[in-house]
Amino acid sequence: MELFYSNDIDGNICRLNQDESAHCIKVLRHHCGDKINIINGNGTLYHCQITSDSHKGVEASILSETENWGSHPYRLHLAVCPTKNNDRYEWFAEKACEIGFDELTPVIGDHSERKVFKTVRTEKILISAAKQSLKASVPSVNEPISVKEFISRQTCGTEAASDEKLLLIAYCFEDENAPRRNIKNVLEGFDGKEIIIMIGPEGDFSREEAEKAIEAGFIPVMLGNSRLRTETAALTAASAVYFRYM
Amino acid sequence: MELFYSNDIDGNICRLNQDESAHCIKVLRHHCGDKINIINGNGTLYHCQITSDSHKGVEASILSETENWGSHPYRLHLAVCPTKNNDRYEWFAEKACEIGFDELTPVIGDHSERKVFKTVRTEKILISAAKQSLKASVPSVNEPISVKEFISRQTCGTEAASDEKLLLIAYCFEDENAPRRNIKNVLEGFDGKEIIIMIGPEGDFSREEAEKAIEAGFIPVMLGNSRLRTETAALTAASAVYFRYM
Repeated sequence: MELFYSNDIDGNICRLNQDESAHCIKVLRHHCGDKINIINGNGTLYHCQITSDSHKGVEASILSETENWGSHPYRLHLAVCPTKNNDRYEWFAEKACEIGFDELTPVIGDHSERKVFKTVRTEKILISAAKQSLKASVPSVNEPISVKEFISRQTCGTEAASDEKLLLIAYCFEDENAPRRNIKNVLEGFDGKEIIIMIGPEGDFSREEAEKAIEAGFIPVMLGNSRLRTETAALTAASAVYFRYM
Repeated sequence: MELFYSNDIDGNICRLNQDESAHCIKVLRHHCGDKINIINGNGTLYHCQITSDSHKGVEASILSETENWGSHPYRLHLAVCPTKNNDRYEWFAEKACEIGFDELTPVIGDHSERKVFKTVRTEKILISAAKQSLKASVPSVNEPISVKEFISRQTCGTEAASDEKLLLIAYCFEDENAPRRNIKNVLEGFDGKEIIIMIGPEGDFSREEAEKAIEAGFIPVMLGNSRLRTETAALTAASAVYFRYM
């Protein structure tokens, strides 16, 4: 099954951008009257019929819609520090999208070597991964912010930890004041659907960041006994949530 | 903590090859008398002292040994069809090593587009991943064989499925005669430690391969509801085992 992406849906009409149109018409040889499936990243699958087969701007009319198509039974927000090697971050984003998550915030930690992050390229990777893994929902990517700013935003109102919302921080160091719990056990003891997980950079979170997170209601967790790279830890955390709700 | 790899351990003496020696002496500036940690891939950590600091061939005497260092409480053999893009396979091998597995067999399926596989490069990636993730055991890589030959080898003697050995095959198609079970439930119902999981190519296993596997005692499983690429499926299967024994 092939999916197209459109962020230009106006009433009953979907328009594909130039890249998607060229792929649809020149590569896949579609023409007027053909039926195609389009996602706009918000969870709805649009079953459409092509009404204009220009390779620069395909137009299609919506025949039917399926909401929450290819969705998962949880809401996962991953706040992951950029890796030194950006390919590793993009790899994680693609794989986490295949498995299923909802929101990505690149967070810059005290020990982060990479302090800049371009969201546009990651957004494209996520759209392509969602199409490939047959999901109508594309994870959103936020602009990068500091770890401390991210933590501060979780302490007020709807963002705060609650019975319905689980805040987790995974770090590697031992801290007698804040023993880490096994992520599997923490997830199994949680009855809600909304989870935020923070994953640190190669140099790990600073003690100060960890303390601030715990004050804000984050639960310190360990991802088992293996020492994982940042991108592997982030994907493993996503897998832990995926298996919890399987 | 830094680890070196040696496949030349003779009595009380470990010798590093030229690459490892150059890294040890030229890059890390070690010299005679320094203490270093060496793995040979078989699960034992050797705490050594450098006795010859030639950058072409370091020699070190073993001071102490720790068996099963950085090990995991299961034995996982992954039989995974090569991906069209070899980078994706190497990525999977690195990540699965970080998480923890023991043996890799590249299997060539009826629908495999890539029918050749070079094991040497993957072996190097696994050594580097084991060192990076602090494991003294490096997964072994077998020469590629066909899916059907691999299945045949599981049907006799110690290779056969048993209460102590679980054989799983993950495919995507629906088969009324062989309904797939949820891998999480199958793993939770298994009390042994030894698991073999077969993962198909982009084009999936053929019906004939699936039937042959089931006849041989393989249990058909699904990795949840997400549609995963071959390399993502293989890593997700490894994660399922990792979390089962966590």
